[in-house]
Amino acid sequence: MKCEEALACVKEQLTEQRYTHTIGVMETAVKLAERFGADVKKAEIAAIFHDYAKFRPKEEMKQIILNDGRPLDVLDFHHELWHAPAGAVLVKTEVGITDEDILSAIRYHTSGRPNMTLLEKVIYVADYIEPGRRFPGVEEVRALAEEDLDLALIQALKNTITFLLSKNQAVFPETVATYNAFVKERY
Amino acid sequence: MKCEEALACVKEQLTEQRYTHTIGVMETAVKLAERFGADVKKAEIAAIFHDYAKFRPKEEMKQIILNDGRPLDVLDFHHELWHAPAGAVLVKTEVGITDEDILSAIRYHTSGRPNMTLLEKVIYVADYIEPGRRFPGVEEVRALAEEDLDLALIQALKNTITFLLSKNQAVFPETVATYNAFVKERY
Repeated sequence: MKCEEALACVKEQLTEQRYTHTIGVMETAVKLAERFGADVKKAEIAAIFHDYAKFRPKEEMKQIILNDGRPLDVLDFHHELWHAPAGAVLVKTEVGITDEDILSAIRYHTSGRPNMTLLEKVIYVADYIEPGRRFPGVEEVRALAEEDLDLALIQALKNTITFLLSKNQAVFPETVATYNAFVKERY
Repeated sequence: MKCEEALACVKEQLTEQRYTHTIGVMETAVKLAERFGADVKKAEIAAIFHDYAKFRPKEEMKQIILNDGRPLDVLDFHHELWHAPAGAVLVKTEVGITDEDILSAIRYHTSGRPNMTLLEKVIYVADYIEPGRRFPGVEEVRALAEEDLDLALIQALKNTITFLLSKNQAVFPETVATYNAFVKERY
């Protein structure tokens, strides 16, 4: 890592409010990693950098995604989704983190994907339930995350899809594919 | 059409309850076709035959879909979805209806698809709101269908996806793609 200290490095990229959120995700991710047997150090680093690209201009995120050689369908959906794949690229090129476990946890922290790794699940759920989160349904996911990471994730995905429907917003297909993969496995 | 009379023909394929439902869909589809300028005769025939394959054995429906040369992803989802594409094939081969407008209205009456034709929309919504339907949310869709077929369809799709989430059931991606296409067009 080129940065002397991860938190100082990411603080420069974020608003104060988003930095506070990041601290919450970091602390939650460490707890979840300990609880469910994920790599605690990787969870901490992935959490610190998960929103690294959050405040980059849309056009910059778009160009990064276009140049990354991965599926481009995310560009047809809300730009709110773009900071995750763009962040994975920037954390590699600007911060110097090359660990693929960490980078994929950043890449999929907003959409999810079928066959998520344990670390990806930890970051997704930590981002959803960190103590600063207040939206409807978060308490149920927090309670589930005490016992069962997959059930917490399924509920978070359901809440997210339901929220988007209630706002007449498009639902990213990968998020539905993630939900479908989990329910086929569990039910 | 090989059958002397469409309703007599379909009655042999259905339970009494499902036949009553079919009459409701037929009457509703005719009204919607008149209201929104679809072909009334085609709407009537498509409605009569929309559930033609409903009580065929799963294995038969599966074989029909496998032999039809179209995408097979529906076979990875609930068999409740299979009677629509299987029905389109059987209505052609057994009943002798070759009109592609009618067959596609049967084929997509459960899943929807992006860029639905007017006739497909009429059958989808008629199936959802016919007078025998009693599920939560149906009244809202009925009210929307008085004025705006697309808004009725969007609401029906949202209700369907929300219902599946509430039951921890997989959501057919084509249904989400249909919803996404509509909301991108309207919002």
